[in-house]
Amino acid sequence: MKFKVDKKEFIEAIGISARAISVKQNMPILSGIYINAYSNGVEFQATDYELGFIVRIEADVEEAGEVILSGKYLTEISRKLPGDTVEFSYIESEKTAHISSDKSNYRLLSIDGTFPKIDRVDSSVSISIKDGEFNNMIKRTTFAAATDEIRPVFTGCFFDINENTLTMVATNTHRLALNKMTVDSTGNNIRAIIPAKALNELSRSLKEDEPTDIVISYANNQLGFAFRNIYMVTRLIEGEFPDYRRVIPTEHKTTAVVGREALSSAVDRVSLISRYHEFHMINFKIENNFIHILSLNSEIGKAEEDVAAEIEGDELSISFNVMYIADVLKTMDGDKIKFSLNGELSSVKVEDTENPNFIYIVTPVRNQM
Amino acid sequence: MKFKVDKKEFIEAIGISARAISVKQNMPILSGIYINAYSNGVEFQATDYELGFIVRIEADVEEAGEVILSGKYLTEISRKLPGDTVEFSYIESEKTAHISSDKSNYRLLSIDGTFPKIDRVDSSVSISIKDGEFNNMIKRTTFAAATDEIRPVFTGCFFDINENTLTMVATNTHRLALNKMTVDSTGNNIRAIIPAKALNELSRSLKEDEPTDIVISYANNQLGFAFRNIYMVTRLIEGEFPDYRRVIPTEHKTTAVVGREALSSAVDRVSLISRYHEFHMINFKIENNFIHILSLNSEIGKAEEDVAAEIEGDELSISFNVMYIADVLKTMDGDKIKFSLNGELSSVKVEDTENPNFIYIVTPVRNQM
Repeated sequence: MKFKVDKKEFIEAIGISARAISVKQNMPILSGIYINAYSNGVEFQATDYELGFIVRIEADVEEAGEVILSGKYLTEISRKLPGDTVEFSYIESEKTAHISSDKSNYRLLSIDGTFPKIDRVDSSVSISIKDGEFNNMIKRTTFAAATDEIRPVFTGCFFDINENTLTMVATNTHRLALNKMTVDSTGNNIRAIIPAKALNELSRSLKEDEPTDIVISYANNQLGFAFRNIYMVTRLIEGEFPDYRRVIPTEHKTTAVVGREALSSAVDRVSLISRYHEFHMINFKIENNFIHILSLNSEIGKAEEDVAAEIEGDELSISFNVMYIADVLKTMDGDKIKFSLNGELSSVKVEDTENPNFIYIVTPVRNQM
Repeated sequence: MKFKVDKKEFIEAIGISARAISVKQNMPILSGIYINAYSNGVEFQATDYELGFIVRIEADVEEAGEVILSGKYLTEISRKLPGDTVEFSYIESEKTAHISSDKSNYRLLSIDGTFPKIDRVDSSVSISIKDGEFNNMIKRTTFAAATDEIRPVFTGCFFDINENTLTMVATNTHRLALNKMTVDSTGNNIRAIIPAKALNELSRSLKEDEPTDIVISYANNQLGFAFRNIYMVTRLIEGEFPDYRRVIPTEHKTTAVVGREALSSAVDRVSLISRYHEFHMINFKIENNFIHILSLNSEIGKAEEDVAAEIEGDELSISFNVMYIADVLKTMDGDKIKFSLNGELSSVKVEDTENPNFIYIVTPVRNQM
């Protein structure tokens, strides 16, 4: 096995496939990257059985072959190589890969065993989607998912293609983020729960400066994402995603429209006092032409700030877990945010006035201020 | 107590004094910053009894007074304040400081107790020293000190003023860094062991773009450093610093002169393999016109690289703790480095060919390659 390859492509192929490497110590083979040199290219694979990456790059292959090498060391070595070209060879008798570039020579012992090669999703159902818009969808939903694994469906993102509309929803039961986009109709509806982790790794693998289509295939409890020279496959989460439509309030007694940046920086400042507090609580007093933001901590002190807002309807005092407000402010990008409220104990709808495809629902905490 | 002050100066005064805050939980008062508003300025103090900072800034003082506030919260609040000016007042009846800037209002509860106010070093012995050159001295010595506290003298930096020469030395017994500079003679000799931590905090408080003189005062087992609007005081370490002159080899059988950057990046690359190794060992084979750098790890593999060098004398194979080589390469800034060696088990002298004031001594490890 012997090939020569462009260093930048080598680094990128290893960097992307390494995202699927397992950190579980009990299966050493999953800590490895499988490298396969064929006629005119090299393929890199890594998987933890949940998530898998296949990356192909062109290479000047002198001798075909395959080897499994430590993902951790491959990643570090590739990044440190000094030259522009990498020479790679695997000496099977020594069980050693030789990786050279310029005056640098590394020898890396191979990992024994049979690599669980990734099967591409063999699908009759596939759709094509623009990466930029899809990436925005991911960023505006996955943050709302649960991070604990107690109820697996909440660690995922509901992915619902119905005719020309893709709806994505994530919730940890205390807050919910929903985002829609239009897709080319294929006549194929898909309903799946994708691990938020897989979507975040997909998002990291996209490049803003290289717009591309992503071809999504669906079969057998797996989704495959093909784009550029990359193929990502993820297992889906089994279970029933709750009916999110029932969570979205349809009426309101108060609305407040407020500048996103002004609110975001005020929440950041005021939350300093509540950040170490047990409940991370922040209070909004919505009255006159202001949202009066308040945070109290009996051991430390108090922070408060007024943000100008256009308010309609009843005055209101309502408290939130500050992270549930700060998180959504970070993901939005419009100039103005609209809050729709129904009293101090009912769910609040948060919208971007410029983006009708996004809705965020947050449950308040009982007012203690 | 009430004053108005420029926000940038407020942030800086708090940031610098906060460096002396104690993290020991058993003395809450040492987690505080003492703030004293007098006629036309405000003084900030913090101390952990080892290290202390006093910072003075001009302020528009309406009412004099003093208060102790949480250093952690003061630091965070000051950095987040939105405006250019800070309004500060302390309402004694409420035990609450009000800190406002623009629309932001913070109230911070004060810390009860008597603050252990810092005494300036009352000294008959004082010298003045240029901050830039002194800062270089600090950076080129303190890194070699010990970080464990088993033998306190090795956590310090020996500070020796003898007539017109200041010599600073630090060692952890496996390596030693020595640096010299010329100072204005005062007729006062000083011999002291300064905690490396204090010197590093001093270094962080200096500003490259504002050269200044530092006035150093010495008395009663303390050193005081006065510069700009800052006064830093540190306790000295008691004990006898070993005679470093005996450690410096006076002869050699081999010399190798090598480009600093080439060596530094080669060591960085090769050490990747040894970094997770028990001994962090790297081997130099000094022969012909090269230093052949090698690192081996029986579980991972091997890395090697040649760096061109001008070599005189005997050929040699010698191994080091890679950190002891990497650390000194980072602190040097000349183009070329000279190694003087006496066989594989004797101490090695490392010099910057452009800076005769700096010497580094490193003990090799027993060759296992």
